[in-house]
Amino acid sequence: MNTFGQLFRITIFGESHGSAIGVVVDGCPPGITISSEDLLPDLKRRQSGGRGTTPRMEADLPEILSGIHENHTTGAPITIITRNGNHRSSDYDLFRDIPRPGHADYVARIKYAGFADMRGSGHFSGRITWGLVAAGAIAKKIVTQASITASLISAGGLQNIDEAVEKAIAANNSVGGIVECRVANPPIGLGEPFFYSFESALSQLIFSIPAIRGIEFGAGFAATSMTGLVHNDAYTGSGGQTTTNNSGGVNGGITNGNEIVFRIAVKPTSSIGARQDTYNFKEQTATVLHITGRHDACIALRVPVIAEAAAAIVLADLVLIDRSVSGKTHCM
Amino acid sequence: MNTFGQLFRITIFGESHGSAIGVVVDGCPPGITISSEDLLPDLKRRQSGGRGTTPRMEADLPEILSGIHENHTTGAPITIITRNGNHRSSDYDLFRDIPRPGHADYVARIKYAGFADMRGSGHFSGRITWGLVAAGAIAKKIVTQASITASLISAGGLQNIDEAVEKAIAANNSVGGIVECRVANPPIGLGEPFFYSFESALSQLIFSIPAIRGIEFGAGFAATSMTGLVHNDAYTGSGGQTTTNNSGGVNGGITNGNEIVFRIAVKPTSSIGARQDTYNFKEQTATVLHITGRHDACIALRVPVIAEAAAAIVLADLVLIDRSVSGKTHCM
Amino acid sequence: MNTFGQLFRITIFGESHGSAIGVVVDGCPPGITISSEDLLPDLKRRQSGGRGTTPRMEADLPEILSGIHENHTTGAPITIITRNGNHRSSDYDLFRDIPRPGHADYVARIKYAGFADMRGSGHFSGRITWGLVAAGAIAKKIVTQASITASLISAGGLQNIDEAVEKAIAANNSVGGIVECRVANPPIGLGEPFFYSFESALSQLIFSIPAIRGIEFGAGFAATSMTGLVHNDAYTGSGGQTTTNNSGGVNGGITNGNEIVFRIAVKPTSSIGARQDTYNFKEQTATVLHITGRHDACIALRVPVIAEAAAAIVLADLVLIDRSVSGKTHCM
Amino acid sequence: MNTFGQLFRITIFGESHGSAIGVVVDGCPPGITISSEDLLPDLKRRQSGGRGTTPRMEADLPEILSGIHENHTTGAPITIITRNGNHRSSDYDLFRDIPRPGHADYVARIKYAGFADMRGSGHFSGRITWGLVAAGAIAKKIVTQASITASLISAGGLQNIDEAVEKAIAANNSVGGIVECRVANPPIGLGEPFFYSFESALSQLIFSIPAIRGIEFGAGFAATSMTGLVHNDAYTGSGGQTTTNNSGGVNGGITNGNEIVFRIAVKPTSSIGARQDTYNFKEQTATVLHITGRHDACIALRVPVIAEAAAAIVLADLVLIDRSVSGKTHCM
Repeated sequence: MNTFGQLFRITIFGESHGSAIGVVVDGCPPGITISSEDLLPDLKRRQSGGRGTTPRMEADLPEILSGIHENHTTGAPITIITRNGNHRSSDYDLFRDIPRPGHADYVARIKYAGFADMRGSGHFSGRITWGLVAAGAIAKKIVTQASITASLISAGGLQNIDEAVEKAIAANNSVGGIVECRVANPPIGLGEPFFYSFESALSQLIFSIPAIRGIEFGAGFAATSMTGLVHNDAYTGSGGQTTTNNSGGVNGGITNGNEIVFRIAVKPTSSIGARQDTYNFKEQTATVLHITGRHDACIALRVPVIAEAAAAIVLADLVLIDRSVSGKTHCM
Repeated sequence: MNTFGQLFRITIFGESHGSAIGVVVDGCPPGITISSEDLLPDLKRRQSGGRGTTPRMEADLPEILSGIHENHTTGAPITIITRNGNHRSSDYDLFRDIPRPGHADYVARIKYAGFADMRGSGHFSGRITWGLVAAGAIAKKIVTQASITASLISAGGLQNIDEAVEKAIAANNSVGGIVECRVANPPIGLGEPFFYSFESALSQLIFSIPAIRGIEFGAGFAATSMTGLVHNDAYTGSGGQTTTNNSGGVNGGITNGNEIVFRIAVKPTSSIGARQDTYNFKEQTATVLHITGRHDACIALRVPVIAEAAAAIVLADLVLIDRSVSGKTHCM
Repeated sequence: MNTFGQLFRITIFGESHGSAIGVVVDGCPPGITISSEDLLPDLKRRQSGGRGTTPRMEADLPEILSGIHENHTTGAPITIITRNGNHRSSDYDLFRDIPRPGHADYVARIKYAGFADMRGSGHFSGRITWGLVAAGAIAKKIVTQASITASLISAGGLQNIDEAVEKAIAANNSVGGIVECRVANPPIGLGEPFFYSFESALSQLIFSIPAIRGIEFGAGFAATSMTGLVHNDAYTGSGGQTTTNNSGGVNGGITNGNEIVFRIAVKPTSSIGARQDTYNFKEQTATVLHITGRHDACIALRVPVIAEAAAAIVLADLVLIDRSVSGKTHCM
Repeated sequence: MNTFGQLFRITIFGESHGSAIGVVVDGCPPGITISSEDLLPDLKRRQSGGRGTTPRMEADLPEILSGIHENHTTGAPITIITRNGNHRSSDYDLFRDIPRPGHADYVARIKYAGFADMRGSGHFSGRITWGLVAAGAIAKKIVTQASITASLISAGGLQNIDEAVEKAIAANNSVGGIVECRVANPPIGLGEPFFYSFESALSQLIFSIPAIRGIEFGAGFAATSMTGLVHNDAYTGSGGQTTTNNSGGVNGGITNGNEIVFRIAVKPTSSIGARQDTYNFKEQTATVLHITGRHDACIALRVPVIAEAAAAIVLADLVLIDRSVSGKTHCM
């Protein structure tokens, strides 16, 4: 199921070591000003996670195949791809028999009866999020009133992210982290109960990103320790402003106009240099796996720009829906 | 958007003080043995949350309108309703001008231009989950190999749930809680990357339940403090068994056959007896709101059976999809 | 697959001799004035086809279960049902072994492994179109600018419909017919290429109606005998008016503002009183089937109000989509 | 809405004079043997319609970007594109002010607020069906038991197609035609009432093809002149064989195992060399339009291979759905 969205619909395709990866964005209104250059800033943020992420050889430059003409969206589906570089894919043969712990190798083999292209982790690779970021850059042009910003707020349980990452690198190991995303000045009234509430739509998209283990909105899990009197956000003004923001900008699945706040839990990278006990499924014996090559010590470093893209895509979809089916008579 | 699912599709309808609430279940295979009586155990668990939940006057007995004949599903859509009792709905008029903090009153008024039926919180009411539980009871008949069990594991931050609830009752206040759901012996290979991974589908459904603020799988947010060496679940046998289960039974968005584990954060009930500072949107002045009547001191007490239903519905949908599009040649 | 539509979504349920039949309409904007009474005229037209149709004992009065409050749509899903009367269902047992020629008896038995409730033809019954007509009455309130009118223009190949029907009645036989539907003053710009063009959406819905064998737009099949010079509709004014209307108001899958014209072919009723050669699948021998009871001599007589409903539903859905994703800046 | 299908889902993109056109096929089971070469026969049939169609300069060779590895489908989305050649697009500027009669120029301008890329008719071009044919070639590999064959059975109202075409060419004019498609040995039980019946799904897809004005199944419009006694297909054997096939292999929206037969009406090409009276929307005056360049005298010549592709795509989708939700216990 590689299509997401109701009106602003994205379809993701590609494998890590295949010919190309990309995205089709369907349902984007016509007349939005955009060019390849507009996609570059977010694509570059995704590409270069800095220390703790593997250096990418690919330029990952976007090529627009359809849907944009004379720097404007046309109303037809927008297709954007980037070519994959050359890879030494033979490294991955080993993982057919000795699947990497924590990785998709094992389930992919069973689900796809051995036919999945798992070179570079194939369609399960984090590389596939490239299309999400490209689509997010377009979505941001639809919800221009909102300001979307995500950042890594902890790694390995520490707020000192550099320290956690260096420690993991030194140990041929990896660490997880928490990414927080905030949307200032969001449109009010976005979200379609019962099953396409703001949180429902966003969490569906967020959990598509590899390595995500949890999501929480506003006070999140901490809300479970609060009383109602503390948790309830008291209204203070006619614009719906509140004293606190424990709801994270969403009530009843619908944005209330206050800042949207959500946090996502990113697990530590599965592929690590340290030796791991595991199982050889062909030989049916215990074994020790030593994964060579370079790996992200902290994939969470790459996630903020993807989280922003996800938020933008969901907001764009919900804006388009709300414009049609709400009782509001204004236009965007 | 009141329809969820790709093949096993449920459509929810109804308002708290309307004529009836219910659900249509479409895409259920024919020949499954089921009757009204089979729905009762889960519906009763939902109805009676015990101390800390409001006593319900309604019997909430299910009436099957279609899709089941001679105690078997027919392949046609299954419709199940229950009638609402008589209510004093005038209580809710107040909340048009003075929306309850933490509740959907404010956003509903804006999104639906004042036309939403907010008596008893209308379509936003927790009562609407009745249809989810009815659909879940059917779904459980499709995924019979799996054993699904959810329970409240903390309330108000305490593992002593009774204590937390009594304290909230005494203070005319409310508390949140954490519900944990475990699926033993799940089918392997369920989940459709990229956008309908197991976690994506389940979290979309879970966040439709009123009052949910977060969800996590396996080690969840705690995984962000772990290293890869600790977090990775080492394989120990040819059935894909692992030493640990930090992934909560899901890798790459696909079930790996180990126990599925997820936890959901339930906020404290918004409606409380204690007085709250808030805003009168008509008079445009600060005011104090005093909500009378009886309210759940801990709505999390009601959530386990709903969480089980959500898990069953998602598993049923994914089983049907997997049977078609995976490379597996077996039938259910 | 009992749900149709992208934003204005209808879900149909029920069997002919089950407890009730009905429809859920989801995605209807709030604030539309409607009551049970508004549904009656179209429901009555559907019920009473006059001579050539079987008299219905049921009052078929609609009961609104949800989504309408104080005579306005609320934005929540609208559920409308009607109860089925008591029926002698034993008549249908015969058709398990000796399926009626031209009917769904045979395929239903195979597809649903013998579990389909085929009493009164079950979910395959023309009775299920009741929900379509109810939903159509709501849809008409969304596309008020358009005037939708359908009529039977031929029966048994004759324009003298009474004559064809009487002849069929006298012979214990049945006849087919052609229904033409015209939409005057439709909104311009409706239809979403590539796969949800106006014709695509409408034909999907029309072919869901039992007994339909064909559909054509504008000049239709006659266009295949024309030259381009004859078929092309020349523009004559700035509103897009044309000299002829061979395109039936649709170009490139999008309404052009001229009158929409389509015709649908309705086959003769399958259930007839005359004896028919057929096969006994249990005994595995040729046999003669004699169907007793009363049957419509010309079901096409009932189709016009259903065709109108289908047109209204599709127009409503396309209006809502177009409002969001087109480049138009006006609101409805 | 450029995505079609429930499980076997295709997403079409591209414009006639853009960078590339293509298709994403999602939901295709893994392990199906296929390569670029397997796509060529159908793509070549589409490209070269013979006399009466314009010679194409493009090789239109397919490039597979994803989803196929070592000549097998992988279970990941399959993306196939072909590059567009260089075109003199300036020819189309004229049609902004003087839209071609019968073409999408006028509605596209209104719907997409002037932003549609209409060079070569853009996303409305018949060229976009290239992706349908590529997807159809894959779909044929899923429904291998069925034999799908379509042909042009009349042009300009004549069975002597050559004569009709030559006459049109000589007159700088065009003619329409009727394409008949037959599916021998189809699987039985395909089609998902109420809204995704075989006819509903197929007609939705067929009417997406540019220039289609009608579709009929089995006896089609001729059935409206028949009596039930003539039209009903009498069963003759335990495999569901029938004496006649007026139902065209479909009862109650579900395939009955007999040959599937449908016919589609293709209008005459809109773009013709002969001068046409029309309207200049900028100058707001009547004018005469003279379209230069070469055009198909009979686009119906190109439609058979596209009709086959549509039939294959729908059959593949319905096979996958039926395998999951029917009561049948066999696998494909």
